[in-house]
Amino acid sequence: MVSLLRRFTLFSQTRRLQSTAATISVPTLNLNAEKRALQNVLPEVINTVLKGPKLSDLPDVRSWIRQLLEYTLCRGKLSRGVIVPAGYRMFEEPYNFSEETQHSARILGWCIEMLQTSYVIADDVIDRGTVRRGKPCWHLRPNVGVSAVNDAVLIQQCMMETLDIVFGKTPIYTDLLRYFNDAMYRATLGEHLDCATAYSKDKDNIHMLHMDHVNSIATHKTAYYSFKLPIFVALLLVKNGKEKASEELHNICMNIGRLMQCQDDYLDAYGDEIVTGKNGRDIQEGKCSWVAATALQHCNDAQRSIFKEYYGSNDPEHVKRIKRLYDELYLPLLYKACERTMYHDIVRQIQDVEHEGMRHFLLKVLNITYL
Amino acid sequence: MVSLLRRFTLFSQTRRLQSTAATISVPTLNLNAEKRALQNVLPEVINTVLKGPKLSDLPDVRSWIRQLLEYTLCRGKLSRGVIVPAGYRMFEEPYNFSEETQHSARILGWCIEMLQTSYVIADDVIDRGTVRRGKPCWHLRPNVGVSAVNDAVLIQQCMMETLDIVFGKTPIYTDLLRYFNDAMYRATLGEHLDCATAYSKDKDNIHMLHMDHVNSIATHKTAYYSFKLPIFVALLLVKNGKEKASEELHNICMNIGRLMQCQDDYLDAYGDEIVTGKNGRDIQEGKCSWVAATALQHCNDAQRSIFKEYYGSNDPEHVKRIKRLYDELYLPLLYKACERTMYHDIVRQIQDVEHEGMRHFLLKVLNITYL
Repeated sequence: MVSLLRRFTLFSQTRRLQSTAATISVPTLNLNAEKRALQNVLPEVINTVLKGPKLSDLPDVRSWIRQLLEYTLCRGKLSRGVIVPAGYRMFEEPYNFSEETQHSARILGWCIEMLQTSYVIADDVIDRGTVRRGKPCWHLRPNVGVSAVNDAVLIQQCMMETLDIVFGKTPIYTDLLRYFNDAMYRATLGEHLDCATAYSKDKDNIHMLHMDHVNSIATHKTAYYSFKLPIFVALLLVKNGKEKASEELHNICMNIGRLMQCQDDYLDAYGDEIVTGKNGRDIQEGKCSWVAATALQHCNDAQRSIFKEYYGSNDPEHVKRIKRLYDELYLPLLYKACERTMYHDIVRQIQDVEHEGMRHFLLKVLNITYL
Repeated sequence: MVSLLRRFTLFSQTRRLQSTAATISVPTLNLNAEKRALQNVLPEVINTVLKGPKLSDLPDVRSWIRQLLEYTLCRGKLSRGVIVPAGYRMFEEPYNFSEETQHSARILGWCIEMLQTSYVIADDVIDRGTVRRGKPCWHLRPNVGVSAVNDAVLIQQCMMETLDIVFGKTPIYTDLLRYFNDAMYRATLGEHLDCATAYSKDKDNIHMLHMDHVNSIATHKTAYYSFKLPIFVALLLVKNGKEKASEELHNICMNIGRLMQCQDDYLDAYGDEIVTGKNGRDIQEGKCSWVAATALQHCNDAQRSIFKEYYGSNDPEHVKRIKRLYDELYLPLLYKACERTMYHDIVRQIQDVEHEGMRHFLLKVLNITYL
């Protein structure tokens, strides 16, 4: 619903950018084809890890890791991983493009998918999830349980091992490690912020729920590893790509992450459970979400008292009262206005990007994020 | 008791090595002085992390990380961290030794202490520990709880951040990242092995409890990050040190780790709770420990049936029965014989090391490990 609205209001703007593109020779971006090609590389990535020297004496562990990777990496949306090969194709000048580097881009795409998968496994343990990517969650498999947390860490190390085996002797290796470590540090800081800013009546910390924290959580928890990491990794493969790794591009990545997190926060309260596939818990957990911070900006004194009384409680009646308060404050309208503004701002930022292939690519990333 | 015995039987051998040393000019090794110097560098390490660019906009997180690092890094034994500066002093030729590099060695020592601390915090959450390093465990502090798991990850990333800030522009940076990633991968594999090899009557997997697994768990869970990592990191600081990073040295590190893990396994069943400060749980958890694997090697059919019946159970009567079985099989005697053999083998391996300072240092590491 939300994305439909946005897609209509912004249709003309998107069209304008696309038609400009048609007049100049820019590589075409076929995300479905890129995803299929990415899928095809998965067995090679898994075999690279399994044939690594550190597993040579551990046949049982090897077969465990094979199961772990095959089970958990399959059937994801690949929205983060595909950014690397798609980005490489769009950022590189056609005369420098090589199939070999494109293949490297796909392996790096899987490294980012491994990172995402490790977060997802850990989240499912903590939230007691049951279904993920159309199958029972990994921790519900026989002989797994809480050791899924160790498996989540293991996947991150399989990722580092892949980087070492495939890129350990290339000039980009050190930068790759730096980028991945940076993204992992930011995600952990985001996770901390997400916990530390949660409201509870006992702690009486309503001041935590403000927009600065919402933005900080969104950039750290989401933007760095979901957007900046794959885009900047793609640039490492491009000839002289580090020159294109600008502050401006960094800001666009942060803003796409913020927009994505706002949508996520909104859908946690207003999404259709059947469509989103999850049961919102932000109200119960007192989360510093975009919705809560916005509600507080618009509360009168009486409404603020209600908020302080009932937010962050598991009681279904309290949750209902908070949802009613959200309705009274016209949160859906406020959300749509905010989303529109953020989206427009990002489109404007993208229009200022000099490199044409990059401009098209970023617009595509922005649009697929909300489909 | 165990170490006393060993110290007496091996006293003459140790004396021989030490008296050889006295005739040649080798730097003296004063571990207490090294530990004090290491302690003094902690505030600088913490400030390096806190002043890092990634925390500049996050004052609340900065103060959280300050508390986390100050609370958890204090009062450790520093037995792993001290290996780096002590190793550098002993491995480097006196005419190449510099105070500046010694300072770098101390910072790297703290990086290894951060890694160790992160494991300790996570273990305490899982085992519901109450006291660590003479203070309540981190997860029992106000506002922490299970988010201690995220804090454990955070400390690892503070470690990576320290490496980046202090060594990011030095020629050893890439090797440092590779060594730390290697040690972390091995430790996670060890953790997996430790869970995957545990016996339970339901699983009927008694074949798991064999000595190959015991050794594999010991090297992966302990030897890599506790011995190989600090020793090989120290060598990176030494002029042409990578030439000294031999297969032979690797094997010594693995064997020290194995010996240490055997002792740990033995004390889990036979240690004095007041001295070890912990309540053994290996029997209850069906762990593939040195004790269990050795017991099975010496069981007759009737004893094997008893073992299969009662091992891996929380029932205190079952635990008592297993402990009685251990006594019937003379486990303390078997342990002492095995420890003596392992210790002798390692001393012999160390005697073959060409570099004299390294020889003295390794003997010292071997000896302090069991004090």
